[in-house]
Parts: sequence; structure tokens; C-alpha cells
Amino acid sequence: MAAWTTGSNDGGVRRIRRDLHAFPELGFLEYRTAALTAAHLAKLGWTLRVGPEVMREDAMLGQPSAASVAEAKAAALAAGAPAEWIDRMPGGQTGIVAELRRGEGPVLALRFDMDALPVRETEAASHNPNAEGFRSARQGLMHACAHDGHTAIGLALAEQLANPAASWRGTLRLIFQPAEEGGRGAFPMVEAGILDDVDLFFAGHLGCHLPTGTVAAEARGFLFATRSDAVFTGAAAHAAASPQAGRNALLAGATAALGLHAISRHAGAVTHVNVGKMVAGGGRNIIADECLLQLEVRGDTPESLAFMDRRMMEVLNGAATMHGCTLETRLMGKNFGAANDPEAASIVASVAGRTEGIATVLPFRKMDGCDDATTMIRRVQERGGKGTYFLIGSTIANVHHAIDFDIDEAALDHGVRLFMGIVETALAPR
Amino acid sequence: MAAWTTGSNDGGVRRIRRDLHAFPELGFLEYRTAALTAAHLAKLGWTLRVGPEVMREDAMLGQPSAASVAEAKAAALAAGAPAEWIDRMPGGQTGIVAELRRGEGPVLALRFDMDALPVRETEAASHNPNAEGFRSARQGLMHACAHDGHTAIGLALAEQLANPAASWRGTLRLIFQPAEEGGRGAFPMVEAGILDDVDLFFAGHLGCHLPTGTVAAEARGFLFATRSDAVFTGAAAHAAASPQAGRNALLAGATAALGLHAISRHAGAVTHVNVGKMVAGGGRNIIADECLLQLEVRGDTPESLAFMDRRMMEVLNGAATMHGCTLETRLMGKNFGAANDPEAASIVASVAGRTEGIATVLPFRKMDGCDDATTMIRRVQERGGKGTYFLIGSTIANVHHAIDFDIDEAALDHGVRLFMGIVETALAPR
Amino acid sequence: MAAWTTGSNDGGVRRIRRDLHAFPELGFLEYRTAALTAAHLAKLGWTLRVGPEVMREDAMLGQPSAASVAEAKAAALAAGAPAEWIDRMPGGQTGIVAELRRGEGPVLALRFDMDALPVRETEAASHNPNAEGFRSARQGLMHACAHDGHTAIGLALAEQLANPAASWRGTLRLIFQPAEEGGRGAFPMVEAGILDDVDLFFAGHLGCHLPTGTVAAEARGFLFATRSDAVFTGAAAHAAASPQAGRNALLAGATAALGLHAISRHAGAVTHVNVGKMVAGGGRNIIADECLLQLEVRGDTPESLAFMDRRMMEVLNGAATMHGCTLETRLMGKNFGAANDPEAASIVASVAGRTEGIATVLPFRKMDGCDDATTMIRRVQERGGKGTYFLIGSTIANVHHAIDFDIDEAALDHGVRLFMGIVETALAPR
Amino acid sequence: MAAWTTGSNDGGVRRIRRDLHAFPELGFLEYRTAALTAAHLAKLGWTLRVGPEVMREDAMLGQPSAASVAEAKAAALAAGAPAEWIDRMPGGQTGIVAELRRGEGPVLALRFDMDALPVRETEAASHNPNAEGFRSARQGLMHACAHDGHTAIGLALAEQLANPAASWRGTLRLIFQPAEEGGRGAFPMVEAGILDDVDLFFAGHLGCHLPTGTVAAEARGFLFATRSDAVFTGAAAHAAASPQAGRNALLAGATAALGLHAISRHAGAVTHVNVGKMVAGGGRNIIADECLLQLEVRGDTPESLAFMDRRMMEVLNGAATMHGCTLETRLMGKNFGAANDPEAASIVASVAGRTEGIATVLPFRKMDGCDDATTMIRRVQERGGKGTYFLIGSTIANVHHAIDFDIDEAALDHGVRLFMGIVETALAPR
Repeated sequence: MAAWTTGSNDGGVRRIRRDLHAFPELGFLEYRTAALTAAHLAKLGWTLRVGPEVMREDAMLGQPSAASVAEAKAAALAAGAPAEWIDRMPGGQTGIVAELRRGEGPVLALRFDMDALPVRETEAASHNPNAEGFRSARQGLMHACAHDGHTAIGLALAEQLANPAASWRGTLRLIFQPAEEGGRGAFPMVEAGILDDVDLFFAGHLGCHLPTGTVAAEARGFLFATRSDAVFTGAAAHAAASPQAGRNALLAGATAALGLHAISRHAGAVTHVNVGKMVAGGGRNIIADECLLQLEVRGDTPESLAFMDRRMMEVLNGAATMHGCTLETRLMGKNFGAANDPEAASIVASVAGRTEGIATVLPFRKMDGCDDATTMIRRVQERGGKGTYFLIGSTIANVHHAIDFDIDEAALDHGVRLFMGIVETALAPR
Repeated sequence: MAAWTTGSNDGGVRRIRRDLHAFPELGFLEYRTAALTAAHLAKLGWTLRVGPEVMREDAMLGQPSAASVAEAKAAALAAGAPAEWIDRMPGGQTGIVAELRRGEGPVLALRFDMDALPVRETEAASHNPNAEGFRSARQGLMHACAHDGHTAIGLALAEQLANPAASWRGTLRLIFQPAEEGGRGAFPMVEAGILDDVDLFFAGHLGCHLPTGTVAAEARGFLFATRSDAVFTGAAAHAAASPQAGRNALLAGATAALGLHAISRHAGAVTHVNVGKMVAGGGRNIIADECLLQLEVRGDTPESLAFMDRRMMEVLNGAATMHGCTLETRLMGKNFGAANDPEAASIVASVAGRTEGIATVLPFRKMDGCDDATTMIRRVQERGGKGTYFLIGSTIANVHHAIDFDIDEAALDHGVRLFMGIVETALAPR
Repeated sequence: MAAWTTGSNDGGVRRIRRDLHAFPELGFLEYRTAALTAAHLAKLGWTLRVGPEVMREDAMLGQPSAASVAEAKAAALAAGAPAEWIDRMPGGQTGIVAELRRGEGPVLALRFDMDALPVRETEAASHNPNAEGFRSARQGLMHACAHDGHTAIGLALAEQLANPAASWRGTLRLIFQPAEEGGRGAFPMVEAGILDDVDLFFAGHLGCHLPTGTVAAEARGFLFATRSDAVFTGAAAHAAASPQAGRNALLAGATAALGLHAISRHAGAVTHVNVGKMVAGGGRNIIADECLLQLEVRGDTPESLAFMDRRMMEVLNGAATMHGCTLETRLMGKNFGAANDPEAASIVASVAGRTEGIATVLPFRKMDGCDDATTMIRRVQERGGKGTYFLIGSTIANVHHAIDFDIDEAALDHGVRLFMGIVETALAPR
Repeated sequence: MAAWTTGSNDGGVRRIRRDLHAFPELGFLEYRTAALTAAHLAKLGWTLRVGPEVMREDAMLGQPSAASVAEAKAAALAAGAPAEWIDRMPGGQTGIVAELRRGEGPVLALRFDMDALPVRETEAASHNPNAEGFRSARQGLMHACAHDGHTAIGLALAEQLANPAASWRGTLRLIFQPAEEGGRGAFPMVEAGILDDVDLFFAGHLGCHLPTGTVAAEARGFLFATRSDAVFTGAAAHAAASPQAGRNALLAGATAALGLHAISRHAGAVTHVNVGKMVAGGGRNIIADECLLQLEVRGDTPESLAFMDRRMMEVLNGAATMHGCTLETRLMGKNFGAANDPEAASIVASVAGRTEGIATVLPFRKMDGCDDATTMIRRVQERGGKGTYFLIGSTIANVHHAIDFDIDEAALDHGVRLFMGIVETALAPR
């Protein structure tokens, strides 16, 4: 992969990001991304643990099917990923932990996420990946939330940090996390213990409606979320000859979708609900006997999430009853909010204030979103460490997850410099 | 394919049916079925026309995508279908017309349909295809409407008719039709002119809630139908960070599905509506920007179908408006009712009355269904010929299109004998 | 009431009908209609039983509230109804049975219904009641199903039958029934025993999409029906300050209404469903805590009605669950189909064939509706008598129950003549 | 009305509140409340302007029908209201402005609202109005938002302020406003010019989830709101005989209600939507031809309200299209948010800090609600005056608008003292 040849003074961050952008992979299926990342880190001299070493399989929610894993591996191989690393990542366990030590000092961990989204990238000529020729080569998948940029920043940073000239002391741990979308990937890594000895933890996100050149030292308002799959099972029948013999799972699903989106707003809290996917039925002239809904509810406190959880189950159960169907629900992901530590946030603020390209530093910005980095922050805090989550402004074309989302690549440089500054400040040699 | 070796006195009708049952194929994708059928008919000495010779591509509604065709061809090859026949059936044109002539006499055409349904076959041990080991090898596809039996009857019959001992005179034409489900396959064959010189036309169906040993000389009450795909297009957005920027195509589809099923019953007519399939959205945390509905409406007269067509469009347009989406509809199939000719029906009645295994002959039975054989009957009648559609009783386990639909294989023999008797009566040598 | 002065050779049928049309009254509240009818019949010399004598209160479904009864009585008094008859009809028991005897002979009963509908009459100038000045004086109520004509026919007939010149022998019983709409009025009269000794029973209906001058000797296809009220109870809350504390009964009702209308059509049967009325909530800024649905389901057999009953309860229960509400359902009316007796129908056919103004006599017509005269026919048949239900054509402006429904008054004369001929034939003096 | 005899040292605030509680009246129909209030104020020596003098009829949204007004007047008379004041309040113009002057000084206005809600009061024995015998005597109406307390405070205050011993100088104006619920009453009073010369304006609200003894010097977060009535008109038809001839307005309304409640939450703003009332159809066996929805949408900025307004119209129009109905919408009320003036709020804070019974003073509390006092504050500010809106804690039994809402009457005393302190501070004689 020529794109990954680095050695340039920026670690090839743009080229890597564009290469990743062209090969988006869904959560727990990031085989090409993870295998190339691992190979690159190994070449740079980092000590690696991957797959089951850093992810507890029994803590994975929404683990992909064996068929999906096999298909993803094959596609990764076909797209240039090295087999030796793929082989070390069975069952969707695509996480990587890279470590370097330089004498005594604190343990500092940085998190980068790798997964993409089931979004079909726009064909508009004005969309930069089209104009510059690095649009998604995978029909229906897209890096529409900047994780391509995050991973690229992590790799460029890894090169600079591994440089003997880099000024830091202690233990550095880079976490390349799968399946951030859906709140699935952090938990099995946390359960594998990789955060248990961490003193300082940082994670960041590009974009988030901040313009290029702006940094928010802290993102607040992380939401608690429950991700579920709901399957309604009814009975098939010929739609004209004996429709009355059917039990219509498609209508159960449609009724549920409307009812879920109509769950009352909460005056005292921020809440969200989304049925993002619905697949029902087989043939036009058959009463649909199965319907899958993929949904999520969110709240800004455990209490408001509990309200949404309760209402979600009422709606799903009622819709099943209405159409004589049975209902099965499966928990597919969880997010927990977290509060950042002021000590960690102040490091970001002070670094950002002296970083080239950063004109504005906000103390915080409200997110109204989730990132399961919060699951990591919570574990770090439980063990007495400190953590924060910051935002790296990048003027974007549209909202996150939209078909024409794109980042301003100048923000990639800002990201590398910010993380570099954070390390050099937090692990400053005495 | 050992299953297709015939020579037995029944033409191997059971074995062929079971082989077909194990390899169900959707409409316009019956590559294995059609290629094996063609090869078998050729070996028996029938003159064949296939693919574009007997189907006008520009008259195909709901033509499959190139990718689907390629996949179906590959699967057919892998399952033993001969490449030379597959190659003659491009673009889903899987129809076959086989002909034999014996001197002067009328042209008699028989129609057999070949396609299966997107139904997942039951895993119940009591289901005969499970007990006897010929269940569908294709996940999610099933012969749940007896077309496996129809094709097997046609092939067994072809062997007997080709036997020099068979007593008939004139021209025999066997039509193996794709895509009967959805009302798609007959029209392009009709438009290719294959019915234009036909004097007598017969088609039959197994089951239809008649017990084994009963024949209905005529099926009445064929419905008029419109099959459509409706696609709602909205706008994607992050479900928590900016849901207000989305336009929710999934909710448009759900609203439409409920509204369509709530179209008023018609007191003066038989009407039906079904949204058989709905596929919407990509990711759980993304506002769905696309939703496909596969639907059909039916009525027992052109007027009642027009009522349903009008209401369908009102509901679809209204649902799009409600959710700020755009709507595109595509016509995917049409069915036209037809009246049988008494002369043709009386031949069936008299033959059935003397057929071994047939204990009861009903003059007619109301269908409340569609079969696009009616499109063929209409063309025959326009050209001055006669046609009818009859029913061959087969005690069945459940309603048609159900996951545990199955035929009583004794009815296969009845079918072969009935068609044989019809030919020997209608084309009796003077 | 000048309108009711008769003595003309037609018994004033038009004038009576127009007077009744101007004062429509809902079922069990026909105080003006019943009191004037009773007074008129008494003056003509008929022996009367009214109120509790002919209606068992414990068999009344959907009995009106005391407040409604008081209001209806007051309005009847204000509109000229005699208090002495009103006083004999407590609690909505507005039924009347009038009898005359002339020597030995069979007991023949005729049924006329009196109630109107909650329909707002059109204001179109072309609507005859507007043009001729007899439109409904009661806002929101209308005789939109011709019961004004039925009662007028009964009264004009009563005058002719009481004339000594009328040629009949035996016992004549005229039944003026309340609350036909909703299937409520016949049952308490049947339970009071008024049909138990009846040998012959006839009831008729004007209109039913037959043109003036046509009679159908028999109406077939009467439906079985269940009429219910469903009340959802939730919890009120301020819609902006604490919507999450509410449980939304309005949404439960809306979900139920859509789900009920989406109950699958039945391929083997005629079915209907209607939510005719929905009243929910109080204030715009309050989460609605109560919702009333008035609904009915119908089927052409006890089995198809059972299907609808079962699905109705599934939908109602499911909707309650979805929105965290409780559900109470109340049975408000029942209809039972009935088969007519050929002997009775043949009397109608032969009489119609020689009735002035009747040009066409159909042996039967399918109704696709209900009339609880069938409850009376069933009782007559159980006791060994015979009964039928016939239709008197009247070219109408629109469908029954529409805001511009109107009858052709020429049909009133046909009705009187037909009933007269039936009596003179069935009770012909030997 | 013994209840209104005052002279006690608290001005009879409890007795007046209980009397008002027993006779709740809807907005623009507060005839008993307003007439008794006016009579009381006149007796105390205040100069009064009422009805059209203080309300511009052409600025009234949602003016009640003549019939409603007549009914409300009659009920007010029957419940002891003096005719001379009722006669001065035609057409629902039930507003009152009372004034006293004492030499030179600023103009200070206080606002009290008078209207109740269409809520059925609970019958629970534990509910204080039941236990103490002052529950609503008006079926279906209830003071469930404490306006009975507000008016009682205003009247008790009027007595104290009129006392020569009261220490203030300038002009005092007491505004008794109708129709606060729904955002209707303030606008016509503002348009009549009654705020145009006001220097200082204060309004307060009891409850709002603050406990007794707590005051919030400022309520923030007032919402912008649009209140609308939507009427769907379809076509009636007999539900079994010809349902296909109907156009179902009830289903249009049900579809709209679900669609409105499913309008996407807004991640960047506070939004609300409520369909508080739905009335559709007449008879159970008639396709409903009319449906009324009473609804409101809210947002915390003009922009977020515009989002809700746009989505509301899309949903309503789409629902009409889906069911072949026509749609008419009527604007019934508007609310505009407002920002309080710090100068005014600081007066409240300092007074509250020294008021007997007040233990806690919060600088502000977020409301997530509307009060059209904001329309008055905006006008005062436009003319150079200052205004604020504060909250008087009252431990309550349930959320506002609930059937068992009740205030802690101790808060009435707090309210009187707070307003008294505000006047004596703001109009302190030099």
C-alpha cells in the first residue's frame, strides 16, 4: 500500500486518511484497517497486543456473524491487508493496543477509533473524496464520522512518538478501538483490563460542528444510550388467497417505529430515539412474517435513559400484541456518559492555546451525542486516574453521518500536533 | 443430476419435483430450473426456443439487476445447470417454449410456471421436505406455491407426449414460464407472439385448498392486480447530534404501510392490499434516508382495482409529504383477470371425470387470487382461440406461501394424467 | 301538529315523512317521534302497548344516560309531542306495538324503525329538504337512512288498515322500533316476547341502491356485527412542563384506530370495520388522559365476525400497552344475520309484481349491511313462523348515511301499497 | 358571596381562592371570576376599565363562539356574579385593569391570570379540594394550574394596597388577564395599549416544581409557541354498505396525531408538540367526515419554533392527502419568549430575601413552559420599561395540569407578601 509509506514530516496523515476513507469497514469488521494499522505500528517499533489479548469476547455486544467475519476478512485480504495480522483477530476482535516505554513515569493512554458507517457516499462531484478520487470503494459504507481521520492521526502520531527525538518519559499506550458506533467496542477492551493501570487518558473527535482552528478542551453532555435489535415474528400467508391466516410482522414493525418516534419528549432531560433500520418481509404477495428493527434510545442521565428504556419496551410489546406477533429483543450496545477530569481538560486547554493553527480554545462544548470512550474514562477514574475528551474543530460540509460529510484535512495536522503536545506536556521529562 | 434421469413410467415426476424443490429460484432468476428443463426437453426431442426468442425484454416489468442475474447464473452453474442453455438466457429471460408437430391439426398450448418465493422454509421435522431430505438448499427461498410440482408435471408430460405411442395430432406447445409470482413473466412472452396462433390453451394449479382427488374444471374470480415498488428518499443525519437535519424515510414508509393496509374495504367488490416487503435505513444511529416498499393492490374488476390504485397513490404521496421525503414509484407487475371459455372448461371436466385418482369434479371454484396465465388466456381469446384454467386438488399442510406449505405428491400423477387426457381429447386424431 | 292531520287518500305519508325529517332523534331518544306516533295510532283505533310493556330494560345495550333522556324528552315536548305518551316511555324505552284483530286468522307483524343518525345535513340548496323547507331542525342530527320514510309508511298504512273497507282477517301487529342503528332496539323488544306468537313477519327498507320502481323480494347477506365502545385512560400532564409524566390516551386511540382499519381483509368472507367516532383530551396544552372510540366490526358469518372480534381486541389491547394506558371496552350492540323464508319472500314477489308503480321485481339483492329486524326474524323462525326482509327501490342522491342522502318520495306510496298488498294477501279472508 | 367578604388581615386570600377553585372557567369565558373580581375591586376603591376598554377584539385569537359566551354568562349569573359587570364584557372580553394613583412616581403594573383548564378533577378523597369541600362544581373543568391562587393573591393584595397605611407612591396598575392558557389573553390587552406607559412590570407563578418557601427571582427559558386548530373534512358514507365512498377524516386525524408526536427531537434546541384534543365523527356506523385536532408546538427560539411550524404543516398536509381529505388550519394562540430585566429581577431577589416564610431564593429557574406575560414584558421593554417574571414555590401534589394538582395554600400568603414587598420597594416614597 503506497499510501501508507510514510517518512514525510507529517507521517503521511493525509495519505493514510484517504486510503482508509476509500475502504470503510463496519464495527468489529475493520480487518483491513486493523491489520494495516498493526503492521505499520510494528514496523515503527511499537509493542503490540491484538485481538483476544485486548478484547474479552464474552463482553462483546452485537458480535458479527461468522459469515460476516469471513467476508470481511476476505475483502481485507483482497484489499492488501496482511494475513498474519488478520489471523490474530478472530471473531471480530479487531482491537489493537500499542505500547512504548521510556523509563519511569505515568501511564498515558490515547484512544483512536476505526469503524465506518452504513451510509452510501454521495456521488456529487463537489464532494472532495469524489473530486480527489478517494471515495468509498465499498457500496453502502462510508467514513461519515471522521474515524478515518482519527486512525490516521493515531498512526502519524505513532511515528513521531517513536522518534527518539520525541521528548517524553513514562509509558505510552495507543488504543485503536473497533466498533465505536453503536457503543460496542470499548466495553470488551475495558473488560480485558487495558485501562486498569492508566494514569491519564485522552480521546478526541474531529468536527462536531466546530470550525477548523477551534478546539474545545472538553466535550460535555455525553449521553447514556441503549442499542437494541427487535425482531417481530408473525405468520406468512398468501396476501390475496388467505391474508386472514397471516400475522403481519411488517405492520407490527411499522406501528412500533411510529410509536417509538412518538415517545414523549422529556421536559427535564435530553432524550433521543431512533429506529435507524427496518427490514421486513420477503415477497410482495406474502404477508410478512418477520421484521427486524435496529434502534437506539438515549438520555442525558441514567434516569432519563430509564424512562426511554421503559417506554421503548411498552411500545414494542404493544405493537407485537396489536398484530398477533411475538417479540424478541437483543441488547446490541450500551453507552454511559462520563464527566471529564478538570486536570486532564486543563492540559488540553493549555496545549491547544500554543498549538500552531489553533486560533480559538473553548473551555467546553455540549455534545448531545455518545462516544464509548466514556466507558474507558469511567474505568480510568474508578482506578484513580484522570481522563478527558476534547474536540478538534474541522469545518465540515454537512452534519455527521450525512452522505456528504467530509472533514477539512487541515484539522488532521492540528490533531497530530495536539496529541503530540499533550504527550509532551503530560509526560514531560523532569 | 441423477434426479432428472427419467425413463420410469411416470417420467420421474416425483424425483424431478424434489430436485426442483431443493433449488428454488426467484422470478426471472430461474437459471438452474430453466437450463435443466431445456436440456431435458431437447434430449426428449422437442424443438426449443428460449430467452429473447420467446420474451420481449422491453415488456419485462421488474427485470432483475445485472448483479442478481450474474449471481443466479453462478449459483445455477454450481448446482449442475448446463452452461450452454444458461448462455442463451441473458438478462433474466429464462422462458422456454418447446414444440412438437404431428401433421395437421389445432395448435394446443400448455403453460407451466417455474419460479419460487422469498419464504424461509420451516425447520419442523414433520415437514415432508425435511423428513425426506429435499428441503430448500437456498436460505430464504422456497417453493411454497407448488411451481416445483407444475414444472415437474410439465417435464413428465413432455416425455409421455414425445413417445410415439402417444395418441395426438396437430401442434403441441409447452410453455415454461418464469416469474409467475408478481404477474411479470407472462406479459413478455405474450408480447413475443408465442400465443398468437394458439387455438386451445390450458393451465392448471396444484392445491388451492382442494383435497387430493378433486378437480375444479374452472377457476373463477381471478383478480386484477398492480404490483409496485415505492422508494422514499429523505436525508440522513446523526440521530442524536442533529436529528432535526434528517428527513426520515423509514417513518414515511411505516406511515405508508399502515395507511395502505387501512385503505377502506370495498363493499361492492373484492379488494386486497399488501406491503410484502419493507427495507429502510442503514445504521442504528442514522436517520434513515431511504425506504423501499414492495407492494401490491388487487381488485376483482378494473373499477375496483382503479379504486385501489387511486387510494394507493394518495397514501404514498401523503406519507412522503408528511416526512418531507420524495417518492418514486415503479410498476413491477400487472395482472388482468380473465374469463375462461366454456368449451375449454368442458374438456377438462370430461377428462377429469374419467381420470384415475380423481373422485370429485367441481364445475368451478372461486380463486380470489391471481395467475398471469390469464394474460395468456386473454391473448388467445383476442386471436379467436379458447382457454381455461383448472385446479388439481392436493391436500396441503397449510395455506399457500406459508413456511410449511407442501403438496401431496399423489397429485403430481393426477396432474400428468389430466394434461395427458386433455391433449388426447383436444388433439384426438380423426 | 298540522302535518299529521291525515284523511287524505294517502294517509298523509309525504307530510308525515317531512315532519319527521325535520325532527330527527337518535336511537332510544325518539321521544317526539314515538309520542306523536302513539297518539296518532290511538286516534285511529289501534290497541297500544308502549315502553316497558314491549321492551325489557335489562336487554338494552347502549342505554342512554338519564341526562340524555331528560334532554330528549324536553326537546320532544317543546316540539309538540304529547306528554301523556312521553311519560309512558321511561329510560329510552321508546318502542310501540299497535294491534288490531278481525276474527280468527294468523298473526302478522310488520316492523318500522324510527331512529335517525348523528349526521350534519348538507346545506346545499339542491338538497330537496332544503329546497322544500323541511331540513333537520336539530344541529348534527339527520334522517340519512330513510327511517323517517319507514315510520311515515307505517302510519299511513295504519290508517288504511284500520279502515273497515280494508280486506283482511286475523291479527295485525305493527311494531315501531327504536334504535335500529347500532343493532340495539330489536333485542329488548324480542326479549319482551312481542314476536313469540307471530306467524308471519315482514320488514322493508327504502333505497339500498335500487332505483324507484324496483323491488327486491328478499335482501340477503345480512352481516353479523359487534358494536363496542373502547375507553383508554392514561394520565394528564402539562404538555411542555412535564410531558414525560403523562400517559397519552389520545395517541393510544389514534394508534388503535389505524390498527383497526388495517385489520386484514378476509379472502373467504365479507368483513368490515369502522371507528366512527373518536373523542380524546381536553386542552391543547395537556396530555390527553382519556379517549373514547366508538367502533363496530362485521362479518358475514359467525366465524368471520369472530375473526374480527379477536383482531379488534388484539389491536385495542396492544394500543393500550404501547401508550401505558388502561383499556375498558363496553358492548354497545350486536347484530345477527338471518335467512329469509322463501314462503314469505314469495308473497312479497307476487304482490310487488302487481303493485302500481313497480316495474321491476328482483328475486333478491345482496345487502352487505345489517338491520336488526333479523333479530326479530330469528325469533319468529324459532317459534315456527316465517319472515322476510324486502327492499323498496328509491332513487337516491347519494349513499346511505351521507350528508345529502335523500329518498324519492314516490317510493313512499310504493311502500304503503306493498305492505297493504302483503297484508291483504297473507291475511286474505277465506 | 360570603367567600368574598374580606376584612381579615390576609384579605381572605384562602377563602377567595377556594371559591374560585369551585367555579373554574375557560379562557375568555371567565365571567363569574371577572365580574366578582371587578365588583370587589370597585368596592375597594380602585378605578376600573374592563372589556373592550382594555382588550382589542380584533387581536383576540381563538375568540369563543356566541353560544359559548351566552352559556358562560348564564352560568356566571346563576353562580352569583353581578350582571352589571357581566354586561360590560361582551364577546369574551373578560379582562380588567384596576388603577390607583398616589402622587408622582413610576407606573408599576402587576399581572394576575384568571382562567382554568378542561381537566376533570380527581375524585380521590385525599385531594384537598375534596377533603375540604371546594372541588370544582363544573364537570370537566378545573383550576389545575393555580390561576385561582393568582387571582386570589391579586385581590388580597388589592385590599392591602388600597389601605391608606400602605407605603407607596406613584401609579399602581393591576391587570387581571383572561385566557393565559393557550397564549391568547395578553395580546389583545397589549394591543389596547395598557402597557404602553408602564415603567416596571412583574408577574409571578405559583408552584412550578419549587417547594413551599422557595422563590426563584427569575424564570428563564420561556418558550415560543404556536397553537392551532386543524380540521380535516372528508366524506361520510355507510360504514358497511359503501365504505369506499367515504373519505375518512378520523383516520386523517389519527395519522396526523401520530406523525406530529413523531416529529424529530431537535438536538440543538428545546421543542415540544402536543395534540391535546381530537374530536372526530358522529356515528359508529358512519365513515367520519370531520375531525378536529387542537394542537400546539413550541420551541425555545424563533428558529426552533419555525422548525416545528414547518414540520407541523408537512404532517397535517400529508395526512390530509393520505386520506383524501381537505385541511383547514386556524391560528388559535401565539407565545413569544422574553428575557427578564436584571433590574426588575434584583428587586424580587432582595424582597424575597427578607420575606417571612421564604427560606430559599434562587437567582433563576428554567421553565420549559410558556406564559403570555412574556408578551406584556416585551411591550414594556419596547417602550423603555423593565419587567420580570418570578416563581413562588408551592409544594404540589402532582405536575401542573394533572387531575390531582393542588397548591399548598401557605404559598398564597407568600405571594401576597412578595408582591406587597415589590410594590413598597419599587414605589418607595422618597
